[in-house]
Amino acid sequence: MSTPLSTEPEALDSWTGKGGRVTRVVQKFGGSSVADAESIKRVARRIVETKKLGHDVVVVISAMGDTTDELLELAQQVSPQPPARELDMLLTAGERMSAALLAMAIADTGFHARSFTGSQAGVITTATHGNARIIDITPGRIVEALGDDNIVIVAGFQGVSQTTKDITTLGRGASDTTAVALAAALGAEWCEIYTDVDGVFTADPRIVGGARRIPEISYEEMLELAANGAKILHLRCVEYARRAGVQVHVRSSFSAKPGTWVMDSSLITEGPAMEAALITGVTHDRSEAKVTVVGVPDKIGEAARIFETVAFADINIDMIVQNVSVQDASTAISFTLPQSDGKVALDALRAVQGTIGFTDLLYDDQIGKVSIVGVGMRSHPGVSATFFTALANAGINIGMISTSEIRISVVVPAEQVDDAVRAAHTAFGLDGEGEAVVYGGTGR
Amino acid sequence: MSTPLSTEPEALDSWTGKGGRVTRVVQKFGGSSVADAESIKRVARRIVETKKLGHDVVVVISAMGDTTDELLELAQQVSPQPPARELDMLLTAGERMSAALLAMAIADTGFHARSFTGSQAGVITTATHGNARIIDITPGRIVEALGDDNIVIVAGFQGVSQTTKDITTLGRGASDTTAVALAAALGAEWCEIYTDVDGVFTADPRIVGGARRIPEISYEEMLELAANGAKILHLRCVEYARRAGVQVHVRSSFSAKPGTWVMDSSLITEGPAMEAALITGVTHDRSEAKVTVVGVPDKIGEAARIFETVAFADINIDMIVQNVSVQDASTAISFTLPQSDGKVALDALRAVQGTIGFTDLLYDDQIGKVSIVGVGMRSHPGVSATFFTALANAGINIGMISTSEIRISVVVPAEQVDDAVRAAHTAFGLDGEGEAVVYGGTGR
Repeated sequence: MSTPLSTEPEALDSWTGKGGRVTRVVQKFGGSSVADAESIKRVARRIVETKKLGHDVVVVISAMGDTTDELLELAQQVSPQPPARELDMLLTAGERMSAALLAMAIADTGFHARSFTGSQAGVITTATHGNARIIDITPGRIVEALGDDNIVIVAGFQGVSQTTKDITTLGRGASDTTAVALAAALGAEWCEIYTDVDGVFTADPRIVGGARRIPEISYEEMLELAANGAKILHLRCVEYARRAGVQVHVRSSFSAKPGTWVMDSSLITEGPAMEAALITGVTHDRSEAKVTVVGVPDKIGEAARIFETVAFADINIDMIVQNVSVQDASTAISFTLPQSDGKVALDALRAVQGTIGFTDLLYDDQIGKVSIVGVGMRSHPGVSATFFTALANAGINIGMISTSEIRISVVVPAEQVDDAVRAAHTAFGLDGEGEAVVYGGTGR
Repeated sequence: MSTPLSTEPEALDSWTGKGGRVTRVVQKFGGSSVADAESIKRVARRIVETKKLGHDVVVVISAMGDTTDELLELAQQVSPQPPARELDMLLTAGERMSAALLAMAIADTGFHARSFTGSQAGVITTATHGNARIIDITPGRIVEALGDDNIVIVAGFQGVSQTTKDITTLGRGASDTTAVALAAALGAEWCEIYTDVDGVFTADPRIVGGARRIPEISYEEMLELAANGAKILHLRCVEYARRAGVQVHVRSSFSAKPGTWVMDSSLITEGPAMEAALITGVTHDRSEAKVTVVGVPDKIGEAARIFETVAFADINIDMIVQNVSVQDASTAISFTLPQSDGKVALDALRAVQGTIGFTDLLYDDQIGKVSIVGVGMRSHPGVSATFFTALANAGINIGMISTSEIRISVVVPAEQVDDAVRAAHTAFGLDGEGEAVVYGGTGR
């Protein structure tokens, strides 16, 4: 896949002029972009602008505004435990409606448009209702419709099971993944994810006034950001993009400004900002809680039995710390997990307290996780020292620590999360004056 | 196909007991039966009752309450002339939602249920969006799901085009047709159409206090009633039932009372009521208007040019009367048509007034059509005399007359429609005391 082009018309002329090559672009718009008839018409005009530049355009669309939540509420009223197959049948009506309405709005501008369900678009998935994974895309009908000069609208979030032929959904927020998967299957030049913010920032701008837009970011860094609290792109979507080598442009649906390009690190433009950037961004996550198992007998296998118990309850554990007590040959084991799984985990552990023989269980949901992410830290061993010093100087207590090759995460008290984010952002020189300068020569 | 059974449990035992044959039944519920979560649960319980009797049950469902109108309104907000393909894509979401919700409600009672879209159910249609016709039913998935002991829920009103593979709709009210077509394809013993009235009546009970439920009616009579104002069954549905020999039971979704069986005339039970019944019912229609073309030159071909003009505007004409003037060798031609087509017809005729040379156009939408229908009139030549005498005695002016082998229709002033219906109902001895006695030995 080539480097993404500038969206400046003059740069595109060479691709779409006489004898030029027509590029394929996939655009994804979320539910808030199509909340009512007026927004749908606005999105339609935006899509048509891209078509006018000479691109083949495929659009992936989410359900309108709160449609999915309203349908879930209706399902609850009918049955407290609706079968997953039927829930998928119900929920997929949402994207079907927004896709058809968007096609109508585009047709009203004089351009041809055709909407397709996930099944019609050839989104083939596993049979796991509510959380299916894309196995394959067979985009024959899309290609045909593009050949007939249509703008193609695809209902996001949905597909059809390869084995049962039943309609499936890919999980909440998975329209991003649909878009990236289609971009890969169609050999699109890039995939644009339209959202309500201007791109990926060095930190949450609501916490850090000087947070700057990141013009380019590697898949690996984006994965770490997504996995550690940045809500802008779904983890699964970034994984898919990395595996398929799809370049993703995260940008605002309310402006024409460039956003953030997510791409292979080898393609990231060298520039003054790149030289200095040890850290690409600071992210935080308030959705976790900490469980501490106190007085675990210090014998081989006891820790394993604790984590087996939690894993059996289908809970994903994030960070783990084990402290050996010097006094009584017992240990305390702490781990973090999603707050929503807290009760289930505690119940499961209490049920085996007698067998394992630990003395107590502590639960703390007043915590937050702060992470710094950047490929630059690979070659700079002083990063963790800088991070911890900055936090210490800000008077912040560090509870737990975990690291990957390009990330350091710490658990801090919930009320100190904002201070920790600000301290790290400043310590690594990320603070800027408003919108960041766009580096490099591509105009992105 | 055999005579429909009684729905009395004792009568059904012989079919479903040990070694007995399992019968297939198709049930159709309209949008008002599933307007909210509570109604959906009520309908689910009703369906489960049939399943408990040992039947294989296939249910055809319409969109909830006003969903279709709300979706049409949304489409209008997005585009004044939405493409028909996209409108079908949008509207079919309605039945998809009600089908999934109904399947959930059934599952909640402990029975297995699976919903299918028209496309999944194998409803193959022509490609005429908004008014497609069923070409074929390939019910493989339905049969398989029935084999797995599921109650099958099929989204009505929709199918998939044989040629384009696009989603189609069959026109408003066409869920009845889906049900009858499925009953035919599945070899169902009968098809139950649940509605908000107790069946087909000898006249509109809101006009005639003594109107009685008709326990059995032939396809031909039902066709005439449907074509002449009775709104209880769609014309196309009755045509399909007659062609396929499907017995249709029209009954109330609010009671367990038997309704009206629509069936081949040879199967109708002989009984005292049958002996006397010259006329099966009286129906009326206030939706038509009358156009009179005045001063048409009395030359060969002029009338043809008038009707060619109207036909070219895609308008269906109902009744026609031509009066030759004795004074000036010109004629007046009157015809009736749907009021909704009035403006188009007048515009089309005015455009050719110079060419044809008529002198004036009159338009009257203050008319009503009253029809008497009955196979009995075939062998009783005095029927029209009885009808016209009754109308004359009631002081009613007859404007136009048209007849078929089993129907006589008259146009009367709008304000005299009720009087005309009552006069005809009484003249043919149809008045009863409340609910009609059920004749015959089958308990229907």
